[in-house]
Amino acid sequence: MLLSKLVGERTKTNPSDATIPSHILLLRAGYIKLVSNGIWSLSMPAKRIARKIENIIREEMDAVEGQEVSFPVVMPKELWAESGRYYSIGEEMVRFKDRCGRDMVLGMTHEEAAVHFARDAVNSYQQLPFMIYQFQTKFRDEARSRGGLIRVREFTMKDAYSFHTDYADLEKYYYRVYDAYTRIFKRIGMKDVVAVKSDTGMMGGSVAHEYMLLTDVGEDTIVLCSECDYKANIEVAVSKRENVRDADSAKLEEVYTADRADIASVSEYLGVPENKTVKAVCYFVKGSEKPVICFLRGDLEVNESKLKKVISAEIVPANIKDVPGLHAGNIGPVGLSVPDAVIVFDASLKGLNNLVGGANKPEYHLKGIDFDRDLSVKEFYDVAKVKEGEYCPVCGKKLVLRNGIEVGNIFQLGTKYTKTMGMTVLDKEGKAINPVMGCYGIGIGRAIASVAEESHDEKGLIWPMSIAPWQVYLCALRTDDPSVREKSEELYRILTEEGVEVLFDDREASAGVKFSDCDLMGIPVRVVISPKTLQRDCVEVSTRDKKIQKDVSYNDAASALKALISQLSG
Amino acid sequence: MLLSKLVGERTKTNPSDATIPSHILLLRAGYIKLVSNGIWSLSMPAKRIARKIENIIREEMDAVEGQEVSFPVVMPKELWAESGRYYSIGEEMVRFKDRCGRDMVLGMTHEEAAVHFARDAVNSYQQLPFMIYQFQTKFRDEARSRGGLIRVREFTMKDAYSFHTDYADLEKYYYRVYDAYTRIFKRIGMKDVVAVKSDTGMMGGSVAHEYMLLTDVGEDTIVLCSECDYKANIEVAVSKRENVRDADSAKLEEVYTADRADIASVSEYLGVPENKTVKAVCYFVKGSEKPVICFLRGDLEVNESKLKKVISAEIVPANIKDVPGLHAGNIGPVGLSVPDAVIVFDASLKGLNNLVGGANKPEYHLKGIDFDRDLSVKEFYDVAKVKEGEYCPVCGKKLVLRNGIEVGNIFQLGTKYTKTMGMTVLDKEGKAINPVMGCYGIGIGRAIASVAEESHDEKGLIWPMSIAPWQVYLCALRTDDPSVREKSEELYRILTEEGVEVLFDDREASAGVKFSDCDLMGIPVRVVISPKTLQRDCVEVSTRDKKIQKDVSYNDAASALKALISQLSG
Repeated sequence: MLLSKLVGERTKTNPSDATIPSHILLLRAGYIKLVSNGIWSLSMPAKRIARKIENIIREEMDAVEGQEVSFPVVMPKELWAESGRYYSIGEEMVRFKDRCGRDMVLGMTHEEAAVHFARDAVNSYQQLPFMIYQFQTKFRDEARSRGGLIRVREFTMKDAYSFHTDYADLEKYYYRVYDAYTRIFKRIGMKDVVAVKSDTGMMGGSVAHEYMLLTDVGEDTIVLCSECDYKANIEVAVSKRENVRDADSAKLEEVYTADRADIASVSEYLGVPENKTVKAVCYFVKGSEKPVICFLRGDLEVNESKLKKVISAEIVPANIKDVPGLHAGNIGPVGLSVPDAVIVFDASLKGLNNLVGGANKPEYHLKGIDFDRDLSVKEFYDVAKVKEGEYCPVCGKKLVLRNGIEVGNIFQLGTKYTKTMGMTVLDKEGKAINPVMGCYGIGIGRAIASVAEESHDEKGLIWPMSIAPWQVYLCALRTDDPSVREKSEELYRILTEEGVEVLFDDREASAGVKFSDCDLMGIPVRVVISPKTLQRDCVEVSTRDKKIQKDVSYNDAASALKALISQLSG
Repeated sequence: MLLSKLVGERTKTNPSDATIPSHILLLRAGYIKLVSNGIWSLSMPAKRIARKIENIIREEMDAVEGQEVSFPVVMPKELWAESGRYYSIGEEMVRFKDRCGRDMVLGMTHEEAAVHFARDAVNSYQQLPFMIYQFQTKFRDEARSRGGLIRVREFTMKDAYSFHTDYADLEKYYYRVYDAYTRIFKRIGMKDVVAVKSDTGMMGGSVAHEYMLLTDVGEDTIVLCSECDYKANIEVAVSKRENVRDADSAKLEEVYTADRADIASVSEYLGVPENKTVKAVCYFVKGSEKPVICFLRGDLEVNESKLKKVISAEIVPANIKDVPGLHAGNIGPVGLSVPDAVIVFDASLKGLNNLVGGANKPEYHLKGIDFDRDLSVKEFYDVAKVKEGEYCPVCGKKLVLRNGIEVGNIFQLGTKYTKTMGMTVLDKEGKAINPVMGCYGIGIGRAIASVAEESHDEKGLIWPMSIAPWQVYLCALRTDDPSVREKSEELYRILTEEGVEVLFDDREASAGVKFSDCDLMGIPVRVVISPKTLQRDCVEVSTRDKKIQKDVSYNDAASALKALISQLSG
């Protein structure tokens, strides 16, 4: 490819609305162009990276017997009504009427389409297991798309769906895909990816893993054990906490705390540490006015994912000032009386005494709350967020918190979709059963951005050889010199014929401009040809990290470059 | 691939709603599955064909220096408002509001996105010419989608956009793409494709060609010269007609024709041939009540594409009963008085005499109309449809009409989009100019269906080797026989390792079922392995057309098959 003709602006200045490195550098290097909020065009080099990533994924999906298929972007309401998701998914799903007035949606994911595709074609257990996958555009009308290709509205995703006779078979296949994903991210060139247990969210199902690229700009939080292999998304992570009960219980006593309404000011005023307080966090069950009151140790935070699971309902933050019996800032477990409320106690409170909590009347708190003496809680649940420094539930060693970008996910869906959509096959005994499903996703654009996030420096992007848009940046200096022009064009032709992917900087521009564009675009190998190198009858070869910088004789350039590319691919 | 696991029903019975062979056979062979009107899922074999077609197109686009990019499916209204098409395109364009209330559209084509992508990145004539292309989903809300993959609402299209400093450069590049398209259709395996001049329609621009696969089920009509190279879509085709004037002109005379209102009954009643009559066809200018009255020879039909160009306006069929001065069935050129009407005379009438036409009053016609004597027409226009048997405008030989499916199109767009969307570059003199554009499309699904339409027999599909989903159908008969199982699995493994694409029919099924599935799916080469062939230590190799049927020794099978595949690829 001739750089003089490549469409895509390269700029020196940082775009004002970009804050994370991948967003800044993909824009500055001319890889992406914003069309609308969360909607992007990709230029040739970005598209080349995308295709290389897709090819790696395709090879690994084919290796686990995947069948590449294609489901549509636009689907009729009926499909999504069958699964129920037409009603359960909110504004993120685009809905419109076609010219005949029929309700249509834009696919956010394709479980429904996959079941629709397979349910008539498959009718015997002998046809199971199978897996179908596609690369297809999805649209999710995110409220806050941001970070370049990290969180967008329109994106291409590899989504895969497997069908099994039973959970044991799904489990076996699930861990084959688990391994395939590990290989995929390694081959793409991501270094710091971990698979963590995760919430199943809107997909339904039980077991799920997310593949997380650990990086400071990630918007997910992952809990990792400092010793053993325990890893989980904070949404589902658990920890060991010691519930330390004092030897003596003080008596229950009301204290005037005036307008002190939060744990920090109450604990400071009364001179007790936050972990000797009990705090209340209030919600409503979504779509109702039923209050949900969650009590937990004052130094902890509610994990809403866990809370939703415990009460089996969606929740929304509550404005409680109109709820009879609730006094904001003074809610406590003793003497609370709110008709029809759901009250949940976190396990961190079990057996504790000498706690400070709200007195359920304005301007007063209680001291000396003893859960064993003053309350009769039937069940405590784990609804608190894990904190850094708490202890691993597996080995008991300290836990560490890291940020991460979710680069892939796999789910054991179970029979949620095959049941609601009426897909059955006959088992060995001739009985109709609902196949058990797994599903497996990787976003292509986010993969590009994640590699960029992990692999860049102050000069620009640094693409791993396996997905680099071109392997070699051929940099001709002083193109006004006929011998430079002739020899660089010849080398471009030879390299191309030998199958080397070359971006040929044939512009009339200074060495400075060319070198900085090469670094910005992140091409792994740079080859410089100039009047000086031609005097020595050689070219200068260097790698993007400058660990290799050497002269290579002009005639050996092709074979030397092929060897270097092969070395960097290893 | 194991056929036992391939998802996609094969059926013997013809689907009731399919009428054309490609639709019937793609359904019956399990290649496609209807999701909603004009919206399909593709199974693995169809997706494999699609990818092979895409790869052929990609190679040819890269060979004319195309840069593969990606534009989004969902675009903001603003882009389409800039070009004006947000307002000029009707219900075929899907419009919806996103969650923030912003107007969005689904892309039907991507001229706007291409200009948006390039206009900031390109600013000098030195960056021209360039071409950018993509494979992307389009959605056109067709009123009548039909014919399987022939006319759909959602489809994948290769669309390409070139940018030039002037028309001469566009013209030169346009014909390079013209040749690339010829190569593409040949490589895909289409035999009877012709490039014909076509209307530019909603795309704008002047010169355009459609690539037409000639086939009876095509919904386009193409005019071809029986002798020379003249070819055109009937929408723009012209012909030579002799306007024969009688030596003597009879006098103008009113005749009573009662309720005879159409040319056929009037000409029969008066005993004159239809080509000695003049007929009127009425329209309104779209969105107004302005009548458009088109006169032409009674045996000809109006070509509405031509008429629209002549009057530079869209037209709709008119209900003229409320238009003062117009008497349906008796409208004629002599004595017609309709205020504010647009009246167009077709060239077929020029100089004619002794014609019968309406008398502009109920129940009467005029005989003896002489255009030279009785009328003073300033200008005659060509607004009639070409008929079979008329004469070639180039060489004068007879014209033939054929049906065709449009499999590709190329347009010289000119500056329509760069002007409206404000894209400029500086030319050599430093003056800002609007680049001149070309655009070039091929629908992938329609290409699949078109090949199926041209290449099938009563038993099923017949894929050309270049796009066949698999090259070889390995048919194991009597899989309950351990030696058949062992040897067929071994051969499957060997062939796969050697790079041969094999669909392995490993099912426990009869020879009849397997042979008919093989023929239905249209795999080019069939290999049979059975207890009988193993006794002879060989396999039976045959081509889909049965022109080759031979025994090959088991040990030579791989090399013999590779040779045969190479021969059939030639």
